[in-house]
Amino acid sequence: MTRASRRHRVHRYTADGAVSARADTVAGEEPLEIRLGGRPFTVTMRTPGHDFDLVGGFLVSEGVVSAAEQIVRMDYRGGVDADGRRSYNVVDVVLAPGVVPPDTSMERHVYTSSSCGVCGTASIEAVTKVSAFGPAGDGVRLPVAGLLALPERLRAAQRLFDTTGGVHAAGLFRFPGDDDGPELLCVREDVGRHNAVDKVVGWALREGLLPLRGTVLQVSGRASFELVQKAHLAGIPALAAVSAPSALAVELAERTGTTLLGFSRGASFNAYAGRDRIAG
Amino acid sequence: MTRASRRHRVHRYTADGAVSARADTVAGEEPLEIRLGGRPFTVTMRTPGHDFDLVGGFLVSEGVVSAAEQIVRMDYRGGVDADGRRSYNVVDVVLAPGVVPPDTSMERHVYTSSSCGVCGTASIEAVTKVSAFGPAGDGVRLPVAGLLALPERLRAAQRLFDTTGGVHAAGLFRFPGDDDGPELLCVREDVGRHNAVDKVVGWALREGLLPLRGTVLQVSGRASFELVQKAHLAGIPALAAVSAPSALAVELAERTGTTLLGFSRGASFNAYAGRDRIAG
Repeated sequence: MTRASRRHRVHRYTADGAVSARADTVAGEEPLEIRLGGRPFTVTMRTPGHDFDLVGGFLVSEGVVSAAEQIVRMDYRGGVDADGRRSYNVVDVVLAPGVVPPDTSMERHVYTSSSCGVCGTASIEAVTKVSAFGPAGDGVRLPVAGLLALPERLRAAQRLFDTTGGVHAAGLFRFPGDDDGPELLCVREDVGRHNAVDKVVGWALREGLLPLRGTVLQVSGRASFELVQKAHLAGIPALAAVSAPSALAVELAERTGTTLLGFSRGASFNAYAGRDRIAG
Repeated sequence: MTRASRRHRVHRYTADGAVSARADTVAGEEPLEIRLGGRPFTVTMRTPGHDFDLVGGFLVSEGVVSAAEQIVRMDYRGGVDADGRRSYNVVDVVLAPGVVPPDTSMERHVYTSSSCGVCGTASIEAVTKVSAFGPAGDGVRLPVAGLLALPERLRAAQRLFDTTGGVHAAGLFRFPGDDDGPELLCVREDVGRHNAVDKVVGWALREGLLPLRGTVLQVSGRASFELVQKAHLAGIPALAAVSAPSALAVELAERTGTTLLGFSRGASFNAYAGRDRIAG
């Protein structure tokens, strides 16, 4: 048993009036504080595990870094309790010289352009971050049969879900050839679906794989605006979600040239944007 | 067609190789900026609709207000685009004299106590907010049959889900008597499950119903730490989730005396905490 999950005694109630005690495994959820250059940057609730990948991917999603060498060091030394024990809930990040840390002040966060998008009709411009990798003009061809196979391949790789039934997952796939099935490059699980994606992107950052041209990101839940944005900033050309996309997710996918699939459930999927990449 | 959803042309791909074009309805998702006393407080992505309830509930969840009279006024006047059109994406809040607005600086946000919980073992203390209503000692009895009926009652009330298949919901119920079925007090839907809960709590704030003693909050997704916290701050004694709770959600439910049900799916549910309220 790791901190990724925990055993808990529960009571199960059924319609026939029976009550039975049993042991249940619940997914871990703990706060992670990210510090940049010694200063608090943010706190996120996450399932412990792959924390450095989570931090790296989060910094990619925030537009702070786009290559592994832009991060000099990460360590857990900052988090120590009153008895001197390490908490593993604080990650200190040292950015390379010249890498500009984000301005965390609220005014800066809200007003990202002189024509404020949140206040006006072009709201998407205010909340969209610019990718370091430019448009996703990658020429990748995605076979329909391979795309249909993704949710089941992702599900089969979800080890924490098997025991807890309660975590999101993100799986990064590629298609070696038109006739080959999907190849799973990386899968990560977390109580937060944004975290699962950040962990995958952080893995790719560390492996020197950014931008992630020629890949598809399959996620277990819905496709929100933020997930399309995370895919875009990592250079991922296609995002597939088991559930529905939001209107803003569709709009951003169209703007960034991202292929967006929803209701991807094995027997069928809906293409909401970028279907020129779908072969056949 | 309101801004809560939007029609979009999609292409459906099936395993037999067929591709068909069809119109699909996707849930609206737009940024909402909340201003307190003219100063930017936060921006959240939400499904437009019931915005003032969302803001009110959010302020309850943040521990800023606990009664309707602590909010003097809310309006949309702040958000105007270059052509003078109102965006309805900015809500200005005027708090009553004496109501302390939250300190939004990062240092304050991270270090909420002298013994920093994020760094140490007692991490839950650092991220837990104090309820204005004290412990949930309400004496309410929750009939098993009624609890089993909640997910179906919630599902039947989800109008936006019917058209989009892609939004979360929160429903507030009460049991008028041991032999009565559940009575639905309020249901709200949103692309963000936290927003759906905030909209319910904001409705109750406006109706003068806080603390929400004797009620059960049924949510469509998982039970995270934050949802237990939102229930606690609104005085709701019981939270039921269709999917799994996290370890921290269970821990916080035990601490706050909240009844926590998971895998609430009609035929059965698991009780993770506070099962003394379950009758029979």
